[in-house]
Amino acid sequence: MFDEGDAGTDTSAATVGGIAADRLRSIIERVERLEEERKALAADIKDIFTEAKSAGFDVRTIRHIIRIRRQDPAAVEEQESLLDIYRRALGM
Amino acid sequence: MFDEGDAGTDTSAATVGGIAADRLRSIIERVERLEEERKALAADIKDIFTEAKSAGFDVRTIRHIIRIRRQDPAAVEEQESLLDIYRRALGM
Amino acid sequence: MFDEGDAGTDTSAATVGGIAADRLRSIIERVERLEEERKALAADIKDIFTEAKSAGFDVRTIRHIIRIRRQDPAAVEEQESLLDIYRRALGM
Amino acid sequence: MFDEGDAGTDTSAATVGGIAADRLRSIIERVERLEEERKALAADIKDIFTEAKSAGFDVRTIRHIIRIRRQDPAAVEEQESLLDIYRRALGM
Repeated sequence: MFDEGDAGTDTSAATVGGIAADRLRSIIERVERLEEERKALAADIKDIFTEAKSAGFDVRTIRHIIRIRRQDPAAVEEQESLLDIYRRALGM
Repeated sequence: MFDEGDAGTDTSAATVGGIAADRLRSIIERVERLEEERKALAADIKDIFTEAKSAGFDVRTIRHIIRIRRQDPAAVEEQESLLDIYRRALGM
Repeated sequence: MFDEGDAGTDTSAATVGGIAADRLRSIIERVERLEEERKALAADIKDIFTEAKSAGFDVRTIRHIIRIRRQDPAAVEEQESLLDIYRRALGM
Repeated sequence: MFDEGDAGTDTSAATVGGIAADRLRSIIERVERLEEERKALAADIKDIFTEAKSAGFDVRTIRHIIRIRRQDPAAVEEQESLLDIYRRALGM
């Protein structure tokens, strides 16, 4: 499974139970740092939406706008036209 | 909601704007019925967990047990053994 | 420690390690049965969408229609009107 | 499309259909920039896991370790002990 081999060729190569512990720890800590940054960005985004709400904007609509802007305009138009056709067919 | 009128006559094959409206409505209503059943099942499951909690069980642990039982026992064992190895390597 | 031995005897109300094992098992098995039913319903829904696609319908639009029908019509109208206002304001 | 200018000056207050268009545009663009950064971080995290896999580590186990490290150690210990008790009760 974890054959030692060259899996941990740091020169120090502390292997604990066949695991390159230093390498593993480094990987985990790097991911954790990036996760922290993501959390901070998520909080920043939340703050902007709070500000938007205070300014009287509808947050749900803003999110919808952002979703639309992310897509190809031609695709958006096609979807909206299809939706319209289906709604008419259903008498909605 | 969608009253019959002539909308439900299979023989007429009403097309509205090029759409087979009856067929579309039938598809939608069948999905909606199944979604209702799913919601009812979800409520039943929630009730069982409420009952479990009242009986003094830890719901989170029960959910974990159910997740484990869903998996192949050999796979579970391997994962737990790997987790153990990694934790030891990290001194956790 | 766990001297009860046969954990599955319904009449004895076996407690294993302070846990009412029969009760716990019954709770888990009931949840699992309901989960099975939910999975079956999800498969049925998927089949209907496959059928819809074969019949030439756009599944994404059907899902959108179902989402709209789930909501209060007045709320849907208000959202769509707001979206329209915001798009115009942004020149979209 | 969205010219720079002073998008945030309250005095200019370009209102389109009763909407402070500049303010709305500024809010949306700030959210979009932060979303871009989040996507970049997600890609960085994915790269680290790819690297981990190449080095022979089990990514699923690393994710599990990260989840455990995020929690209070006492809470983790309690959960694991409960899980153990329930499994024994169920003869798992």
